[in-house]
Amino acid sequence: MTSSGLQAKAAQLIAARDAQVTPDYRFPPSSPFPLDVSDLYRSSGFLSARQIDIVSHYATSLSEAIAKRTYTAVEVTEAFCRSAALAQETTNCLAWFAPKEALEAAKGLDEAMQKTGRPVGPLHGVPISVKDFINVKGYPQSAGHIASAGLVPDQDAHIVAILRRAGAVFIAKTTQPQSIMHLETTSFYGVTRCPYNTNLTAGGSSGGEGALIGARGSILGLTTDVGGSTRGPAANNGLWGFKPSSKRLPRGGIVGVTSVSRIAGCIGPAAHSLRDLELLVRIVLSAEPWKRDVTLVPMPWRDVDARGVGAGCEGWSGEGGRLRVGIMWEDGVVRPVRPTRRALEGMVDNLRDHSWVELVDFTPEFVAEIWKITVQLYYIDGGKKLREALGEEQMYPLTEWIVSQCHELSNDEVTTLVNRRNALRQRYLDLFQSLRLDVILCPASPGPALPFHTTRYWSYTSLFNFLDWPALVFPTGKRVTLNDRDDHLAPRNEDEKHLYRTYSPETCIGAPIGLQLAAPRWHDERIVAAAKIIKEVLPVEAD
Amino acid sequence: MTSSGLQAKAAQLIAARDAQVTPDYRFPPSSPFPLDVSDLYRSSGFLSARQIDIVSHYATSLSEAIAKRTYTAVEVTEAFCRSAALAQETTNCLAWFAPKEALEAAKGLDEAMQKTGRPVGPLHGVPISVKDFINVKGYPQSAGHIASAGLVPDQDAHIVAILRRAGAVFIAKTTQPQSIMHLETTSFYGVTRCPYNTNLTAGGSSGGEGALIGARGSILGLTTDVGGSTRGPAANNGLWGFKPSSKRLPRGGIVGVTSVSRIAGCIGPAAHSLRDLELLVRIVLSAEPWKRDVTLVPMPWRDVDARGVGAGCEGWSGEGGRLRVGIMWEDGVVRPVRPTRRALEGMVDNLRDHSWVELVDFTPEFVAEIWKITVQLYYIDGGKKLREALGEEQMYPLTEWIVSQCHELSNDEVTTLVNRRNALRQRYLDLFQSLRLDVILCPASPGPALPFHTTRYWSYTSLFNFLDWPALVFPTGKRVTLNDRDDHLAPRNEDEKHLYRTYSPETCIGAPIGLQLAAPRWHDERIVAAAKIIKEVLPVEAD
Repeated sequence: MTSSGLQAKAAQLIAARDAQVTPDYRFPPSSPFPLDVSDLYRSSGFLSARQIDIVSHYATSLSEAIAKRTYTAVEVTEAFCRSAALAQETTNCLAWFAPKEALEAAKGLDEAMQKTGRPVGPLHGVPISVKDFINVKGYPQSAGHIASAGLVPDQDAHIVAILRRAGAVFIAKTTQPQSIMHLETTSFYGVTRCPYNTNLTAGGSSGGEGALIGARGSILGLTTDVGGSTRGPAANNGLWGFKPSSKRLPRGGIVGVTSVSRIAGCIGPAAHSLRDLELLVRIVLSAEPWKRDVTLVPMPWRDVDARGVGAGCEGWSGEGGRLRVGIMWEDGVVRPVRPTRRALEGMVDNLRDHSWVELVDFTPEFVAEIWKITVQLYYIDGGKKLREALGEEQMYPLTEWIVSQCHELSNDEVTTLVNRRNALRQRYLDLFQSLRLDVILCPASPGPALPFHTTRYWSYTSLFNFLDWPALVFPTGKRVTLNDRDDHLAPRNEDEKHLYRTYSPETCIGAPIGLQLAAPRWHDERIVAAAKIIKEVLPVEAD
Repeated sequence: MTSSGLQAKAAQLIAARDAQVTPDYRFPPSSPFPLDVSDLYRSSGFLSARQIDIVSHYATSLSEAIAKRTYTAVEVTEAFCRSAALAQETTNCLAWFAPKEALEAAKGLDEAMQKTGRPVGPLHGVPISVKDFINVKGYPQSAGHIASAGLVPDQDAHIVAILRRAGAVFIAKTTQPQSIMHLETTSFYGVTRCPYNTNLTAGGSSGGEGALIGARGSILGLTTDVGGSTRGPAANNGLWGFKPSSKRLPRGGIVGVTSVSRIAGCIGPAAHSLRDLELLVRIVLSAEPWKRDVTLVPMPWRDVDARGVGAGCEGWSGEGGRLRVGIMWEDGVVRPVRPTRRALEGMVDNLRDHSWVELVDFTPEFVAEIWKITVQLYYIDGGKKLREALGEEQMYPLTEWIVSQCHELSNDEVTTLVNRRNALRQRYLDLFQSLRLDVILCPASPGPALPFHTTRYWSYTSLFNFLDWPALVFPTGKRVTLNDRDDHLAPRNEDEKHLYRTYSPETCIGAPIGLQLAAPRWHDERIVAAAKIIKEVLPVEAD
C-alpha cells in the first residue's frame, strides 16, 4: 500500500474507533483538562457516585461484591465503560472500545447468575482490558502499525478464552506503539498520555493499558513484556504489573509480532493491587493451559507462604528466616534521577525497620554488554520483518532508535550471542545464590515518565527479560515534585547524558515512581510472597 | 594437526587405553570368540561364580545387596571390572578403563560404611559407566574425534557429581562415534560391536554403553540422545533406555559437541530394567539439579500410580480407567522388517488380553518432512563446526551421510524451520489428545542391529527428539531368527530400499528387538507408569 493509502486507512481506523464512543459516552468538558487527569473519574461529574464506588474497587473486591449481588455485571460494565471513555478522551489509550458487546456479555452473566444463583466463575462481571495485538473474538485489532490493522479475529487468544470462561467482560482493546517495541506508546493512533501528567508518556509498549487502568477506566488488564512493556507502563501510571517467567502463561493468539527475537516475550497482568495480579495468574494457571499449548511448562501456581516456604523452598534465606533482599541501587550504567533514587531510599529506610527483612547490596554485572546482546537478539533479522510489515508507513523515532541498533545476524553470530546469553544467565544465578538472596529490589527505570519520544534506556527492566526472571513492579506512592531537581554529576555516557537532559522536575511533575522486585526464573511465587511482605511498608493503600 | 599427526595421536590414545587393561584383566581365549558373546561373562570362566552372581544383578537389587552387606563395594567393582574388560575384548566398547580409581573409590565406600554403619547413598558401590564426552574427574576423554581427545577434566559433569555423591563407582568411559551423530559407533577407536552378534553394530551414538551393559560389563550407564543415541543402543543390545524430556536432567559438563543444533539433546540412563532407569532419574532429580543449572525446569519426579493418577493427571484415559495405548505400526515412510513387525505384533497380541489396557491405532503425520527439518536443525551451520573440529581427520561414511544432508542456514531459514517445528509439535499434541491417548507404542527402529556403517534411518527415534517427547525403549525378548526373512514389498523410497538390501535374517541373526513407548513432553512419569503395566506381558524377565 502506498503512503497515502496507508494514511487514508489510518484515518478510517481512527474514525471507526472514535465512532465506538457514542454520544452517551462523550464527556463535554467545561474547560480544558488539567495536567493531572488521574482523578477525573471522580471529579468530573461524568460518573455517578455509585459508579465512582464501582471503579474505585480492586478486581478482587469487585468480584466479591458482584458475587454478593452488591452490583450487577451490567452496572459494573456501564461504570467502567463511562470511565474508559473518559480516559480515552484524556489519554488516547484505546485502540477499540466495545461497550455494546461488553454490556451484552454482562447481561448474559447477570441472567446466568439469576438462574443458577452463583457466579459463572471467579471473574464474574469483572471488566478486563486487553492490549491490542492479543486476540479478542469479534474485536478489530492491530499490531501497532497500519498494515496489520483491521483484522477481526474469530477466536479468542488462549488466555482471553480462559478469562472469558471465568466470567470476565472485555470492554476495550488498548493502544500499543508501532513495532510494539517502544517503552512509550506512539502509533498511527497518536501518543498515549500518562494520566498523572498528560504531557508525559504512559510508557509502553502496553501504554494503553497503563493509562486506562491508571485512570480507573479498567480494573485489570492483559499486557505483554519483552523488555519492560508490562512494567514500564505500570511504573509510569502508579500500578502493579507482573512479568512472569516465560512458558508459564499462554501466549497463543497474539498476532502480528514483527521482531524475530531470541528474547522470550511474556504475557502478564497490570492492576491496582498485588492481590489482583495474583488473582489473574491463579485463574489462568488453574485452567492448566499447558494441556493445550505445547510451549508451556506444566507448572501450577505453587503457594509460597509468608515465611518463604513453598515451591520447593524451605523458607527465606536471611538470618532467623528473614526475607533477604538484595538492593540494586543502580545498574552501573545509568544512575537513576533523584525522584527514583529517593523512592528506593525511602523503601529501603522503611524496610530496615521491618523485623522480617534483611537487606544487602546487590551489584549487577555486565549490564552494558547485556543490553547490547539483548537489543541484537530482539531483531536477529536486523529488523527486516518489521520493515516489511511497515511497508510505506513512516517509522517513528523510537522504532528507528531500537531497530537501528541491530543488524541481520549470521547463524554463527546468533549462536555466539545465545551461548553468551546462557552463560550470563548462569552467572547471574550463581551471583544471586552466592549472596543467598531471596529477591532483588531495584528501580523499574532510571527515571519517571518522560516527555514523548524520549524514553530510551530499557536495561532496568530488559535485564530480567534477558535472564528470563520474573519481575514485578509496584507503586511507591511517591510522585515527582519540584524538589526533585537532580544533582549534576557528569554523565558517564550518552545514555546518562540523554536522560539527564530529558528529565527535569518541572517537566515530570506529578509522575508516579514505581520500583521493581525480581528473582530467578521460575520463582514467580516467591516474588509474590516477598511482595506481600514488602508492601507492608508502602506509604500508599495496598490491597 | 596433520593427518599423520592425528593418526599418531590416535595410536597413542588407543595404546593408552589398552594399557589400562593390565594383565590381570586380560582374558586369553582358548579359541576364537563366538558370534554371540553376550553370555561370555557367565561361560568364559573369567569370572568366579560369585562374580557372575554380582554382575547378573539389577542396579536396584545390587544396591540393596550391598546395603545388606551381602557384597562389599570392592568385590562388586572388581567383578564388574573383570566383566568390562571381557566386554572390551569382544566388543571394543571402552574409551577408557579405570579399575584402579574405581577400586580405590570402592574401598573408600566400604570404609565409610564400616565406620557409619550405613551406605553413603542409594547407589553405594554400584558401578556406573559413562559415555565418553561426559566429564568424569580425572578420566581422559574425547568427543569422538581425535583432536578432542586427551582432555582430563578436573571436575565431574553435574550429573556425575550427583551420582558420585549417591555412592556410584565410575568404572569406565565408553565409546561413541565420530561426530557423536551416528546410530552406530565408529571412531578412531574402531567399531563397537553388538555382543549378541559381533558382526553387527552396537548402535549409537551411545554404542559403548549399549555393548558394555549388554555384555554385563556394567549395570547402569549414562547416555545421551538427540536422535536416538540412548534408545538405539538400548534396542540393539536388549536393554532398557530412557530419553527424558529435555530440561529435566542436567547436561552441564558434556564437552565437545560439534553440532550447532536446534534439536534438544537429552541425557538419560540405559540399564537392564525399568526400575533401574527410574532409580537413576529419581536420584538425579532428588538432588534438585535446577537449583544449580539455569537451563533446567524445577520439576521433581512426580509419582504416577498404576491407575495413571499423578503428575497433574487423574487417571488413564481409556474406558473404565484403562491405559489407552496408541499403536504406531509404522511411520509411513520406512516399514519395519519382519522381526520388528513380529515383535510389535506379539506385544500387541499380549496387550489385547490385558484387562488394564485399551488399544487404538496411531498414524503419525508429516514424518518425512519432520526428518528433513530435524536433520537440518542438527547442523544449522551446515556442519562447519564439525569440519573444523575434525580438521585433517578422515570423515567416516556415517558422518558424511548425516552432515551432507545439511547446508548452512540463513537466519530466515532457521526461523522458518523452527516455526514449522513448533507448529508440528502443537499438531502432534492435538493429534495425541484427539485420540485420548496415554502413550504411544511403536518400533524403536525399522530393523534390528545392522552390519557396520549401514544404519541410516533415524525417524522412529528422532521423531521424539523433534517433538521433545520423553521416550523409553524396552527389550521384547525377541531376537532375529532364520525364520525372519522379510517379504518382498517393493520399496517405496531409497530409505526402504537401503534397509531391505541391508537386512537379512542370516546377517542379523541373534540381534535383539526393542520397542518404544512415547508420550508428550513432560509426561516422563506417565511413560514409566505405563511401562510398568506393559512389561507385565513381556515374555522376558523384567524387574
